[in-house]
Amino acid sequence: MKNVNIALLGFGTVGKGTYQTLVENQKLINQRFGVKITVKKILEVNEKAVKGSGLPKSLFTANYDDILNDKDISIVAEMLGGIEIATKFMMAALNAGKNVVSSNKAALAANMPKLAKAAKKNKVQLLYEASVCGAIPVMSTISGNLGGNKFTEIRGIVNGTSNYILTQMAENGMSYGEALKKAQELGFAEADPTADVEGIDSANKICLLANLAMNYYQDPTTIKRTGITKITDKKIAEAKAKDCKIKLIAKAKIGKGGVSLSVKPELIKKSDILYIVNYEFNGITLSTDCAKDIFLYGRGAGSLPTGSAVAGDIIKIASCLN
Amino acid sequence: MKNVNIALLGFGTVGKGTYQTLVENQKLINQRFGVKITVKKILEVNEKAVKGSGLPKSLFTANYDDILNDKDISIVAEMLGGIEIATKFMMAALNAGKNVVSSNKAALAANMPKLAKAAKKNKVQLLYEASVCGAIPVMSTISGNLGGNKFTEIRGIVNGTSNYILTQMAENGMSYGEALKKAQELGFAEADPTADVEGIDSANKICLLANLAMNYYQDPTTIKRTGITKITDKKIAEAKAKDCKIKLIAKAKIGKGGVSLSVKPELIKKSDILYIVNYEFNGITLSTDCAKDIFLYGRGAGSLPTGSAVAGDIIKIASCLN
Repeated sequence: MKNVNIALLGFGTVGKGTYQTLVENQKLINQRFGVKITVKKILEVNEKAVKGSGLPKSLFTANYDDILNDKDISIVAEMLGGIEIATKFMMAALNAGKNVVSSNKAALAANMPKLAKAAKKNKVQLLYEASVCGAIPVMSTISGNLGGNKFTEIRGIVNGTSNYILTQMAENGMSYGEALKKAQELGFAEADPTADVEGIDSANKICLLANLAMNYYQDPTTIKRTGITKITDKKIAEAKAKDCKIKLIAKAKIGKGGVSLSVKPELIKKSDILYIVNYEFNGITLSTDCAKDIFLYGRGAGSLPTGSAVAGDIIKIASCLN
Repeated sequence: MKNVNIALLGFGTVGKGTYQTLVENQKLINQRFGVKITVKKILEVNEKAVKGSGLPKSLFTANYDDILNDKDISIVAEMLGGIEIATKFMMAALNAGKNVVSSNKAALAANMPKLAKAAKKNKVQLLYEASVCGAIPVMSTISGNLGGNKFTEIRGIVNGTSNYILTQMAENGMSYGEALKKAQELGFAEADPTADVEGIDSANKICLLANLAMNYYQDPTTIKRTGITKITDKKIAEAKAKDCKIKLIAKAKIGKGGVSLSVKPELIKKSDILYIVNYEFNGITLSTDCAKDIFLYGRGAGSLPTGSAVAGDIIKIASCLN
C-alpha cells in the first residue's frame, strides 16, 4: 500500500482532532482509499501541549525547517491560527513543493491571491474545507459535485459563537452579556470574542466562499459588516413577535453590478431554511443555476468535527499522489 | 486544454439536463477544471426524442457499438432506466476500459457487486451521485470530505414522490388518491407509481448509501420495506395532533448485529431535522464518529438538478484523466 507522510502545524484543538481522526480510523482509510497516511512530524512550540499529548516527544519539533527540508513529507496541514506566521509557513511549504491543507480562515482570506498563485506555480494543491463551517463539506461541494453549476447566491450562518448567543437570547431570554458569558464557559466563545461577535470571522468565511464559488476575491477587511453587539432584548422580542429570528447572515450575491459580499444581522422568517439553524450550529444555502438550492447543515466547530474536515482534505490529496 | 470525449446513454429527462449543464456552463467548467468536455455521441433509440432535441442528427446513434468501439470516448453516462439492458451496457463500457457515470439507482442497486468488481478490474471509475437524491451531493460527501469518518447511521427522505403525497395530505388535507393524482399531473409521479409509493425506489437508494458508506451490500429486493399506500387521512390527523409528521424514512444503521436497512413510514417529531423536508424535496442526515451529524437538503429529482449531478461526476473523472 502507498504510504504518504504528512506534517501537522499546531497541536491545539484542531490539530488534535485531525490526529485522532487519522489514527483512530486508519484501517478504514486504508481500505477505502488504498493509502496509508503517516503523521511524521508535528510542529508545536508549546512544551505543555507536547507533554500533555501523550505522544512520543520525537514526533514533535519546534523548528519548521525539520518539516520543510524533509523530502518525505508531501502534505503540510496548517492549524496554527493567526495571519503572518501561518501565511509565511504556508507559502514556504507551497514553494517547497508540498501540498497544503489549512483550517485557518483568517490567514487564507487575507492572503488567498498569493497562496493560490503559489500553489498553481508549484503544481501542488491547497485545500481548506475546515476553514469554513467546520465539519460541513461546503468547499468540497462547491468545487466537487456542483462543479458544473453557476453559483448565483450563497447565504449562511457561518459563525457558531454569534449564533449561539442570538439563540440563547431568543430561546431562553438571556441578555447579550449572559449569553456571551455562557458561550465562553462552554468553549464556544474565546476570552476576546471580537472576531466572532463583530462579524470578522464571518467576513473571512464569505470571502473564501465567494472566491471559490464565484471566482471573486475581495480583501475581507473591506467587506461591509455589522456584528451582533447592538442586538438588544427589545430587538429579539420584536423579531419574535413577527414569528422571525435575528441571525447573523453572511452573503455573497451576483447582481447586475457583479458580486457583492455582506455580513449583517437579518430578520429571518420561519419559511426560510436558515430559521432552523440554532445554537452553535452552522447552516448554508448554495443557490445555483442547475442544482437550484442546496442546504448544508452541521457543526461549524469542535475538535473532531473540524479535524475530520482537515483529515478529509489530507485523504483527498494523499489518494491522488503517485 | 485537455479534451475529454464522452457519450450519453439516453436522452430523456436526465440526459437532457446533463447535456444542458455541460453545454451551457462549458466556459465555466473549462476555467475551473482546465478540461473541455465534448459530448461525442448520444445513444437514443426513440426517433421522436432525437427529432425533438434540436441537435444535429449525427450526434445520435441507435447502435451501442458505435460508442463502445470508439476509443476516443473515455466516459459513458448511463441514464437509460431499467435494469437488464442498462447493466449490460454499463458492464460492457467498464470492460472496454471506459469510466461509467450512472443515475440509474435500480440497475446500480441490483448489480453493484459485479459493477464495482468490473470497475476495479479495469481500473476505471464508476460514479453515481445522481442516483441518490438527485442534486444533493450525498455520495460525493460520503466518499469525499467525510472519507475519514466511520458512518454509524444514515436516515433520509430520499423519494420525492412519496414525500410530495404525504405533504399534500398533511398540509392541504388531500386524500391519498387526490395527492397522487396531483403528483402525476405535476410530473412528480409516474403513471405507474408503484416503485415510489411502495418504497422500492427508497430501498434501492438506501442499498447504495449503505454500500458506499458502510461497505455493506444487501440485495435491495430483500430490504424490509413498507410503502405509504396504507397511510390514511386518520393516521395523518393523529400524527398532526401529536405535533408530528408521517414521513417515508430510509435508514441504514450499524448496531450490535451489524448493518440493518429499512424503509418505512415513521412518525417524525418537530425537533427532528427531517420534519422540515416537505413536498418533492429530499433530505438526509449522515451520522458519523468525527463530523457528528451532517444534514443535506435539496431537490431529489428534475432534469437540471439531476443532470447537474451527472455532470459533476463526469467533470470529476474528466479532470483526473491524463
